[in-house]
Amino acid sequence: MNEKRKILAVTGARSEYDILYPVLEKLQQDADFELQILVTGAHLSENFGSTIRHIEEDGFTIADKVYNLINTDQKIGRVISLGHQISGLAQTFDRIKPDVILIVGDREEAISVSLTGAYMDIAVAHIAGGDVTKDGNIDNSVRYATSKMSHIHFTILEQHSKTLLKLGEDAWRIHTVGNPALDRFLSLPTLTKAELSTQLGFDVTHDEYLVLIQHPIITDFENEGKHIRATLEAVVSLGNKCLINYPNSDAGNHVIIEAYREYVTKYPQLFLFQNLDRLTYVNLLRNAACLLGNSSSGIIEAPSLGLPVVNIGARQRGRVSAGNVIFVDNDTEQIKAAISKSLTDKSYRTSLRALTNPYGDGNSSNKIVEVLRKINLDSNLIHKNITYTTHE
Amino acid sequence: MNEKRKILAVTGARSEYDILYPVLEKLQQDADFELQILVTGAHLSENFGSTIRHIEEDGFTIADKVYNLINTDQKIGRVISLGHQISGLAQTFDRIKPDVILIVGDREEAISVSLTGAYMDIAVAHIAGGDVTKDGNIDNSVRYATSKMSHIHFTILEQHSKTLLKLGEDAWRIHTVGNPALDRFLSLPTLTKAELSTQLGFDVTHDEYLVLIQHPIITDFENEGKHIRATLEAVVSLGNKCLINYPNSDAGNHVIIEAYREYVTKYPQLFLFQNLDRLTYVNLLRNAACLLGNSSSGIIEAPSLGLPVVNIGARQRGRVSAGNVIFVDNDTEQIKAAISKSLTDKSYRTSLRALTNPYGDGNSSNKIVEVLRKINLDSNLIHKNITYTTHE
Amino acid sequence: MNEKRKILAVTGARSEYDILYPVLEKLQQDADFELQILVTGAHLSENFGSTIRHIEEDGFTIADKVYNLINTDQKIGRVISLGHQISGLAQTFDRIKPDVILIVGDREEAISVSLTGAYMDIAVAHIAGGDVTKDGNIDNSVRYATSKMSHIHFTILEQHSKTLLKLGEDAWRIHTVGNPALDRFLSLPTLTKAELSTQLGFDVTHDEYLVLIQHPIITDFENEGKHIRATLEAVVSLGNKCLINYPNSDAGNHVIIEAYREYVTKYPQLFLFQNLDRLTYVNLLRNAACLLGNSSSGIIEAPSLGLPVVNIGARQRGRVSAGNVIFVDNDTEQIKAAISKSLTDKSYRTSLRALTNPYGDGNSSNKIVEVLRKINLDSNLIHKNITYTTHE
Amino acid sequence: MNEKRKILAVTGARSEYDILYPVLEKLQQDADFELQILVTGAHLSENFGSTIRHIEEDGFTIADKVYNLINTDQKIGRVISLGHQISGLAQTFDRIKPDVILIVGDREEAISVSLTGAYMDIAVAHIAGGDVTKDGNIDNSVRYATSKMSHIHFTILEQHSKTLLKLGEDAWRIHTVGNPALDRFLSLPTLTKAELSTQLGFDVTHDEYLVLIQHPIITDFENEGKHIRATLEAVVSLGNKCLINYPNSDAGNHVIIEAYREYVTKYPQLFLFQNLDRLTYVNLLRNAACLLGNSSSGIIEAPSLGLPVVNIGARQRGRVSAGNVIFVDNDTEQIKAAISKSLTDKSYRTSLRALTNPYGDGNSSNKIVEVLRKINLDSNLIHKNITYTTHE
Repeated sequence: MNEKRKILAVTGARSEYDILYPVLEKLQQDADFELQILVTGAHLSENFGSTIRHIEEDGFTIADKVYNLINTDQKIGRVISLGHQISGLAQTFDRIKPDVILIVGDREEAISVSLTGAYMDIAVAHIAGGDVTKDGNIDNSVRYATSKMSHIHFTILEQHSKTLLKLGEDAWRIHTVGNPALDRFLSLPTLTKAELSTQLGFDVTHDEYLVLIQHPIITDFENEGKHIRATLEAVVSLGNKCLINYPNSDAGNHVIIEAYREYVTKYPQLFLFQNLDRLTYVNLLRNAACLLGNSSSGIIEAPSLGLPVVNIGARQRGRVSAGNVIFVDNDTEQIKAAISKSLTDKSYRTSLRALTNPYGDGNSSNKIVEVLRKINLDSNLIHKNITYTTHE
Repeated sequence: MNEKRKILAVTGARSEYDILYPVLEKLQQDADFELQILVTGAHLSENFGSTIRHIEEDGFTIADKVYNLINTDQKIGRVISLGHQISGLAQTFDRIKPDVILIVGDREEAISVSLTGAYMDIAVAHIAGGDVTKDGNIDNSVRYATSKMSHIHFTILEQHSKTLLKLGEDAWRIHTVGNPALDRFLSLPTLTKAELSTQLGFDVTHDEYLVLIQHPIITDFENEGKHIRATLEAVVSLGNKCLINYPNSDAGNHVIIEAYREYVTKYPQLFLFQNLDRLTYVNLLRNAACLLGNSSSGIIEAPSLGLPVVNIGARQRGRVSAGNVIFVDNDTEQIKAAISKSLTDKSYRTSLRALTNPYGDGNSSNKIVEVLRKINLDSNLIHKNITYTTHE
Repeated sequence: MNEKRKILAVTGARSEYDILYPVLEKLQQDADFELQILVTGAHLSENFGSTIRHIEEDGFTIADKVYNLINTDQKIGRVISLGHQISGLAQTFDRIKPDVILIVGDREEAISVSLTGAYMDIAVAHIAGGDVTKDGNIDNSVRYATSKMSHIHFTILEQHSKTLLKLGEDAWRIHTVGNPALDRFLSLPTLTKAELSTQLGFDVTHDEYLVLIQHPIITDFENEGKHIRATLEAVVSLGNKCLINYPNSDAGNHVIIEAYREYVTKYPQLFLFQNLDRLTYVNLLRNAACLLGNSSSGIIEAPSLGLPVVNIGARQRGRVSAGNVIFVDNDTEQIKAAISKSLTDKSYRTSLRALTNPYGDGNSSNKIVEVLRKINLDSNLIHKNITYTTHE
Repeated sequence: MNEKRKILAVTGARSEYDILYPVLEKLQQDADFELQILVTGAHLSENFGSTIRHIEEDGFTIADKVYNLINTDQKIGRVISLGHQISGLAQTFDRIKPDVILIVGDREEAISVSLTGAYMDIAVAHIAGGDVTKDGNIDNSVRYATSKMSHIHFTILEQHSKTLLKLGEDAWRIHTVGNPALDRFLSLPTLTKAELSTQLGFDVTHDEYLVLIQHPIITDFENEGKHIRATLEAVVSLGNKCLINYPNSDAGNHVIIEAYREYVTKYPQLFLFQNLDRLTYVNLLRNAACLLGNSSSGIIEAPSLGLPVVNIGARQRGRVSAGNVIFVDNDTEQIKAAISKSLTDKSYRTSLRALTNPYGDGNSSNKIVEVLRKINLDSNLIHKNITYTTHE
């Protein structure tokens, strides 16, 4: 049979969508596939920038919108959102009957999709399993649980694949492909500093500017206020312009946003953006002097740019980095020192230009598409035999 | 501090409750603990015998009833039920703020509790992780995922503990305790055959009777009708009385129940029970000539009774058994042959009397209670550091 | 613009679907409309006969299946089911963006659809508003609330329209059309008694047989067991065959079904059917000597057949009837007397042949289709101005 | 029996809570009652000021928190929130088994509570039924539907009671009590202008200041941006200080908040408050020169203060007002003219001092408590007989 394979991608936040996008773009253009997108979670909230519009602008077919995000910062909110998401997902899966569902990462969407797929006997392909985030984070538990219920694994690093093997996943289900987000990142056009300034609405052509992206830590959101202030104090004590991007939708993001609003009012060197378009964002990093905060961009994309990164606090700790990242605590003095080194230590800066990025070479989405084209969609794929425990 | 530890046990089906009961009974009587039970799932459905009444009769405090079971046999029903369950659980957890939540097994309740606990930073103690059921069953995926999100593991077999270690769980979180259901099973009073006959409402004092318990297989429920008929044909071809117990609430159980009703009408040697009380059930097994079907009783309790078991079909395959189980396919001839051997092969029957039961010695619930009494309820317990992957 | 009008019909039980069907059939064949069906509630449960298969067999396009029915007989089950239904409905409405949603009656589906339509600014056309069921029934509250939130009213009786006017509904929104179920009922082919016997699987050619349909009363389900036994005792005390149809899915139906199973085993004159096809059902009534129970068939369809009806208990009390109905309490003696009169009182039986049926003339569905074709779909339709209270 | 009557009040937004509070305070102090509060909706969202803290500070027992508010401004969000709310409410109702549930108004909470109570056979007492808001508003539909499913009606105005009678509600269920919010409003201590200035953090002792409160209109939220700007342009064209209070949580509130933030940055005469405490708010109105916008405060409380009100746009149109309200469109010139008249027309201002407030005399909560103390809690209360339609 040469029927098209029905792929349903599920996305709940812009961070996932950015990883998915290069894969979706290729699937969309490929006659072997029929692609639809289920949009849910933070994408559908004005409080998080209504990022569904990016998906609409990109021209994909939206299968359904599953509104599930509970309007609260309390921990209970995430899991109630997850519970409500499941019935919406199931309704769509039942209608469309996809051959494969595609999902990324370690957020509520990942676990709810893998659960729903597992119970409904639909193949789930999971991108970015086997990763680990160190210290106090539910993300690891959710990511592992997602892997145990998924049928195809697209990992980012070789050692993530090894982790999945240790977890008892079959080798034939695991494909080390790198991070698809890099595909797009590396292929986006380059803006001049002048063009970038036009996009931003103010001049950065002569600036050694900083970029700050700090997401809340779900397991420690009580300290978000103190932490973000430690960072902001470090930033304003230096003279450089700092362009700040909104945090994601995790509990505690409110506190961070409030702090940004307060500091932006007081310090004209600070600029706050709620939703930068991708082209602007990439070129912002390409021209930045240093990236601050705890965004995965510092780990994953920055090495390809030779960009120095100051990673602040527990988030991203324990992840493989290419040598361009200084890890510091939520401490103003440590942050200041790390920024200074990043801006002024010439041998450090020089060393960053020669980095090899362990997160990929810009070809990840092709690798994923080829697996999705060729993998046997049979009961062997769906019914996982976890055999290693039975040999004893 | 010597405040009582608040334990919330969650149960969604009688099979779980039977495992939990000996633990609950001890916690209830222990001044160090304050115990409540959240009742959900099949317990609240008349179609599954309204088994909440057992919990009420046992005198436990019911924290909340979470009605979530969708009235359908379709696969989609289980996962929608699971999704709805989460918001109910979360509401109760948020109100009660238990120190530890206790859950058993690999059903929807297990994964929904572990997810909700993980997102809400409440310690989850999981009984019966690390187990494996061979072939075609979502139970494995769900059980592993549950383990990856739980904080304390009470395993039944030593090799289950080893499996959890391989899955990256910390050794200090894992306690091999055996199966608590055995505690109660072994301690229940013995009825004479005459007393048993009175309970049943018909005479079995001179019968070499069979007991049949066959649960549906969620991943293969399309074949339930064929499979149960294969079993029933084998049973009726022999002359023995056969006492049949209702299947559990998994998708496909309807088909099994319909077949039972049809055969019971035609064959007076068959007797169908919807909800046997525990005392009757245990003594039914103590006096049975052979147990048929795919109930875990054949694996776990039967060895302590020296009872021969014919396990039919994929369910229970791959589980450790003590030598009293003949595994056969859903094939009438195979089933007949295995029953015959079980009834007539003297050396086989003799060998069963000397079995050691790998599933425990009747002391499991005490072991669990002692761990719950002493374990530190701190952030180290809640925040799982999955460190083995970061050493590379 | 002459775009097709998108109609989404929602149905949750066979009783509604039977009323909707003649309308759906006409919409389906009409080039001015594009019709889809959302299937939910009892249709999706094997316990209620999986009646979605009728909709599939009838060849309609199913927009989505919303699995929502909680598996319990407790009162809480219906409202939880209703709550879960809403998010499923909303997801479908948001995807399809129908011009008009069509709904019938006073069940959970009616109120959940009207609520969802009202909040989402989508026109809801409600069939069978303004009706009243006397004594002890939530149906009235739900039906009135549904009317207050619906935008177009198709009523069955002239006095139902008057009731809606009193409730403050605009006259232009109200259309007295009769009961569409009659359209199909009257147009179905006539089977001979011999053909009917073949359908049933046993002979009724020479029988003065009874038909029994008794639904539970949600507000009094504790007495269902006593009530149904009162009826069954009356039936078996007479010699006539009695053909029994399953009750609907309301709380308490279990008790009725159990009683049926018990009596059917004991009395060979009783015959129990779970899901009669429509042709058989209609001809069953055409040839029946008397209809017993509390089905609306006795009120609505029976007059067109001149069929005597014994309506037992509170259900249907207070509804307009054509003179063919004897209303009795749940009392064996009263029931027996009323059956006797129905079977033997010649002048009574003769009078029934000349009845005019107030529930319609078989043309209701055409009237509904014409309104749906012509009504202005504008904000005046959607935004209800309830003006009569402001004039004071 | 003299057992305490169990009252469960449900509140989802501060506006309702302010109406409920005087009743709750009295029930709390009364030995005949046992009071608990179920908190849900906007109370639990940081985006709406986490107003649950007021309830906690007031010292009431919180029965459960039902997190249900979907994080979106789209219309679909409200009804999905409502659906999810129902299962949470039902879980609590089932656990507590209240004698009476108390609810206010026409928001999602009102309809979801009345539905859940009706299906679970629990008496629902509804405050503020029979009211009407003119033009384009779902509130009327929801309020009427709520009344049709509630068992006791506490109305605010005599004509609201008449409306309920016309709707077919029994006279004995209807009690005209006035608006309880006035009880508290009238009894709160008076601050001097100096004390008020201290509370506000800036001086208003010599100011003829305006107060602006504008809520979104759910059926017209696409025009919110234009409308709020029309108002703000009028305000800034005059010199007066204007103290602005945040809108409620209805869809479209975001647009209003954004406009406020923009104007506040540009115009130092504008002051924006997210959550004024009640004492400050009342004294703010007592000392204000004019109240603008579309808050119900202008209709209900302002007459007791002789405060001139400019009501802008469709919200509140059609409500009974005492003569202190000028109704204008969302038009800058009209708004300016009405403010000018309110500030400078001496005979108009003088006439306001002599108003009688039709919304009550400060004794409403006592009246409600007395009904709750004495009403028979029997099946006659629960089972509504809507008889007027059956007489025809």
